[in-house]
Amino acid sequence: MTSPTPTPVNRLFRFIASDTGLWQVTKAQCLVGESLPAATAISVVAGNIQAVQEVPAGAMWQLQGITSNERYVQRAEKTELVAKQEGLGRADSSCAAIIPVRKNAAWWAMTQDERREVLEAQSHHIAIGMRYLPAIARRLHHCRDLDPNAPFDFITWFEFAPQDTTLFDDLVSALRATPEWTFVDREIDIRLSRA
Amino acid sequence: MTSPTPTPVNRLFRFIASDTGLWQVTKAQCLVGESLPAATAISVVAGNIQAVQEVPAGAMWQLQGITSNERYVQRAEKTELVAKQEGLGRADSSCAAIIPVRKNAAWWAMTQDERREVLEAQSHHIAIGMRYLPAIARRLHHCRDLDPNAPFDFITWFEFAPQDTTLFDDLVSALRATPEWTFVDREIDIRLSRA
Repeated sequence: MTSPTPTPVNRLFRFIASDTGLWQVTKAQCLVGESLPAATAISVVAGNIQAVQEVPAGAMWQLQGITSNERYVQRAEKTELVAKQEGLGRADSSCAAIIPVRKNAAWWAMTQDERREVLEAQSHHIAIGMRYLPAIARRLHHCRDLDPNAPFDFITWFEFAPQDTTLFDDLVSALRATPEWTFVDREIDIRLSRA
Repeated sequence: MTSPTPTPVNRLFRFIASDTGLWQVTKAQCLVGESLPAATAISVVAGNIQAVQEVPAGAMWQLQGITSNERYVQRAEKTELVAKQEGLGRADSSCAAIIPVRKNAAWWAMTQDERREVLEAQSHHIAIGMRYLPAIARRLHHCRDLDPNAPFDFITWFEFAPQDTTLFDDLVSALRATPEWTFVDREIDIRLSRA
């Protein structure tokens, strides 16, 4: 079966930490592993550019990730997610969080069925996220296969309204208490507010 | 659980087509989609370098891919694969093939359970490959999340002895007859012989 080359959809995103930017850092916490230098603001730059860009002049650091196909979600879960979730960029979502995470070698050595077992059967990762929809919007970016030297495996970007901050705290606390999180060996939680 | 940063294992490979190189092209066939310019030889370059390199001077084209975690294989299958398979670089494996493949948007829109259903329950991809071990050694490289502009999603590199060429032809024929292959919209099969 041949099919025309699909219209390119942007999948690559850069998160640039510097002194200025749309999203002001309100709090940053390193939960496990090495921290990142403190920054005042984060800019999110989308672009289907060549991978692994140089850090822009004046930036303290940048992270990049790529959105990709589903790795664990099954059809019934996907249907429920799509029905409940809302996109990024909502007018009242003036709060955000960027949480880069790395998982250890034991995680990556597992086979697909073993990882799904830990992620959902034991940890209910998908089900927990579902409970916070549509209040907490998210976009998952993969880093591990974008750059073999990437300092994180995933970057998740979340957006929510200020009054849902406690809800968001509950979500990340619930995930951090799961068996899946015993495989996380680096995690930084940076909270942001739209300027 | 924290763990030390693992020793970097090279995961990034470049396949450079030019006039000279260890592997001489003996045959090249475009099965579906756009072809690649004809080349005389292919060089395989390993290196945990920054992703997305420029095409070297004098090269006709290059492809690059990254080895990654298992996407479909389950533990029982993995155990059997590991017990049967042999590595690349065997002295008598003087034949090789490089087969870059792209899958269409319908493939990537499926959820994990749907893709596994097509790949193994319907197409027996893992079971078919198992039947040709240890004669046919292989290494799978992913491209899709390495570079959003990558012309292929996967590059598989195979090595085998000259007397197993018919066996290798059987293997690729069997895979191309599966439901999984109805999602393939670009495939080129380049056969090689070690100089």
